[in-house]
Amino acid sequence: MLRQGETICAPATSAGGAIAVIRISGPESFPVIEKVFFPSDKSLVINKQAGNTVIHGEIRDEGVIIDEVLVTLFRKPRSYTGEDSVEISCHSSSYIRSRILELLISNGTRIAAPGEFTQRAFLNGKMDLSQAEAVADLVASSSEASHRIAMNQMRGGFSAEISRLRSELLRLTSLIELELDFGEEDVQFADRTELLSIVNQVKDLAGKLASSFRIGNVIKNGIPVAITGKPNSGKSTLLNALLNEERAIVSEIPGTTRDTIEDTIFINGLEYRFIDTAGLRDTSDEVESMGIRRTHEKIMQASVLLLIGDISDTPEGINKRADEIREKIKHSGKYLFILVNKIDLATDGSLPEFEKHVHPGQNESLLFISAKEQQGLDELRRRLGEIVEKEKFNSGDVIITNLRHYEALSKVSESLSRVEEGLTNGIPEDLVAIDIRQAIHYLGEITGEITTDEILGNIFKNFCIGK
Amino acid sequence: MLRQGETICAPATSAGGAIAVIRISGPESFPVIEKVFFPSDKSLVINKQAGNTVIHGEIRDEGVIIDEVLVTLFRKPRSYTGEDSVEISCHSSSYIRSRILELLISNGTRIAAPGEFTQRAFLNGKMDLSQAEAVADLVASSSEASHRIAMNQMRGGFSAEISRLRSELLRLTSLIELELDFGEEDVQFADRTELLSIVNQVKDLAGKLASSFRIGNVIKNGIPVAITGKPNSGKSTLLNALLNEERAIVSEIPGTTRDTIEDTIFINGLEYRFIDTAGLRDTSDEVESMGIRRTHEKIMQASVLLLIGDISDTPEGINKRADEIREKIKHSGKYLFILVNKIDLATDGSLPEFEKHVHPGQNESLLFISAKEQQGLDELRRRLGEIVEKEKFNSGDVIITNLRHYEALSKVSESLSRVEEGLTNGIPEDLVAIDIRQAIHYLGEITGEITTDEILGNIFKNFCIGK
Repeated sequence: MLRQGETICAPATSAGGAIAVIRISGPESFPVIEKVFFPSDKSLVINKQAGNTVIHGEIRDEGVIIDEVLVTLFRKPRSYTGEDSVEISCHSSSYIRSRILELLISNGTRIAAPGEFTQRAFLNGKMDLSQAEAVADLVASSSEASHRIAMNQMRGGFSAEISRLRSELLRLTSLIELELDFGEEDVQFADRTELLSIVNQVKDLAGKLASSFRIGNVIKNGIPVAITGKPNSGKSTLLNALLNEERAIVSEIPGTTRDTIEDTIFINGLEYRFIDTAGLRDTSDEVESMGIRRTHEKIMQASVLLLIGDISDTPEGINKRADEIREKIKHSGKYLFILVNKIDLATDGSLPEFEKHVHPGQNESLLFISAKEQQGLDELRRRLGEIVEKEKFNSGDVIITNLRHYEALSKVSESLSRVEEGLTNGIPEDLVAIDIRQAIHYLGEITGEITTDEILGNIFKNFCIGK
Repeated sequence: MLRQGETICAPATSAGGAIAVIRISGPESFPVIEKVFFPSDKSLVINKQAGNTVIHGEIRDEGVIIDEVLVTLFRKPRSYTGEDSVEISCHSSSYIRSRILELLISNGTRIAAPGEFTQRAFLNGKMDLSQAEAVADLVASSSEASHRIAMNQMRGGFSAEISRLRSELLRLTSLIELELDFGEEDVQFADRTELLSIVNQVKDLAGKLASSFRIGNVIKNGIPVAITGKPNSGKSTLLNALLNEERAIVSEIPGTTRDTIEDTIFINGLEYRFIDTAGLRDTSDEVESMGIRRTHEKIMQASVLLLIGDISDTPEGINKRADEIREKIKHSGKYLFILVNKIDLATDGSLPEFEKHVHPGQNESLLFISAKEQQGLDELRRRLGEIVEKEKFNSGDVIITNLRHYEALSKVSESLSRVEEGLTNGIPEDLVAIDIRQAIHYLGEITGEITTDEILGNIFKNFCIGK
């Protein structure tokens, strides 16, 4: 485990912008800042300042001014980490940032590991583990829906309920274990009806939360949408039209899009990640054929596929390409949108031909658009929005988005199914107690009442530095 | 001019990182924050808090929590702008940032124009104009040398001296103008020797500063270095070796580098911007030939050219390509480095052939390297460092980096040359006075004692939002 006694520092903002914030936390925060920071008000003694105050001054290295800064002092336990902490707000130049960090390190701090500030907040009891995990989700949230879930989780969300039910289980299993100590005497301290009722409550909650994971994951990470089709059918133009800006390089030369470009749009507060892909034609160009391999991978990662053709295609040609994709995605639950593009160039009679011969199946749509003239795009957006409603997204429920929670909850459900079975079928108490203990263990892993270095390491390594 | 009475807001940090800072400044800062911010300590009244304090709480929109934040209060005039100001430190999610900004706007603030915070600091007398301009340079500084210049300028630098000399000129020219009022009486209030001495001092300073502009510009913007040569001679490998990482796509297929990729290395605290270019061969590929056109443009923008060949070339071939470049860059003062790459594959005797037949001229070097095996790269770095020393960079002097200052200083020099001439040749006082007034005007434009909306507009439009 990372040692808490050390004083850590890290940039909390990314490069760019007007100002940068550098965080320091740990017992030496104040002594270190006193060595490098010189308040404009020379009579001011940093160590005598109250917490939550801001001081103007200069960061200096051996008399050389690095920057004019604002320094904010936080005294324990009234800080994010629960330790003495300092934030330096400096000009956001990469040079200044790195010089200040170097200076802090040479004065006895070290660069924080990813998530170490939040990990300290957890270890100092400022938040439980699922709340700490929500911090990373909150920072990464880019849509209304993902923000709401992360904020709910950070503010306690389901963990208070889990913690309460876990205490109940703990109380009851202790009573069962006490019974076991009495061996042959056949006493019963734990009320079996109450126990069964608590087991049922936990099982219900665990099941409900676990089943929210699928939609939770979609909300958290966005819905991946791959755009595919023959070269020059207007994939990049469609992407640009949906994004309303010139992201992809649009060129008249077939095969221009060599790399996949990702961008996002928002429909009903949900994020759709669009993936432009290289064309599907066979090619002998080595660089381009790498792009086509990637296209196939992207198709398998996407939840929604937009197959784009245009009015110069025949219905048969489009059906053939749709069949190729159907073959790839069958039984995967993916959605397929068949788009006929360039309808602004359509001569009378060509569109009915498509409608007559191209038949969208289940989870499929046929749409006529002009990416260039922005025709049919609102309908496309509306249909994309409907997909999530089809998945029965109910924003009022508590939703989990974290694979670790999902796995722990699944194990809780398994264990408690065995407990239920055991209690009704008269399985020996000592075996039932083991299964309850197991459920208690996995519930504790969610909130962090049970942790191992490995669990903590895995959670916080995915944080950004400075959080 | 932007109205100062309004209350402005803007993000001060860029997207990404762990936290984001949003700034508010103007008379309504406190009333606005009171409407949207709810301190955790419910007894706390924001309007009664002292300046420079930090408060923990929640930003809410109609009861919905947007984020848990820290709010810092600054009371005028003890703030960056000199106005009442607030900084909100929130989680750095793009969703949260934009929701908070929307909320501030719907409560009566508006998004700040680029540089408007600093413009207000200038208008409220917190800094002069050249100091305000240095803020933008400081944020953009990425090398030790550019940081030192910007910091020096932000802390007063040459503007105090300019301001002092300007006052002297102003005093003396008032006396001359007074003499003119007395018309025929032939009185002399202004000591001509003193006037000439002041004029000389200002002219010296203006001349010295103006001539520092060339090197100042190089320090501020970095030294552009173009890498050019025939396809597959190892341009990308050289760039990667210099940068010590895999930036450019290195491929065995000639013609892979289709776009110019810029990256920087630092030598002796100075920044060198490397520009990888498409190969120089003739091509029929449309995309690639666009790349080659850009190569020619990049060559003309660069101060230093690295022409890279390899040991499979003949000395004649290299001379031919060097001559093509010499033809393009003649009389431009650009430096040419002829690099013979892949010396790790050299058979005995081939290198002396190059030395015998390839003759670097003035401002030219011939170097043998192996980009792949990192041979000769230290020597290349050393030679690049020498270029700036050749330009007689003397870091002890005050250096200007700003084109606006350079132009003003040039005009000051011109005016004062006419004054000197006038005073020695007995030109009528009223004409001399006009030239002094002109010099005074241009000096005032540097520090901002003279400004127009146009000058201010031009300066601050190049700032980032939030500064």
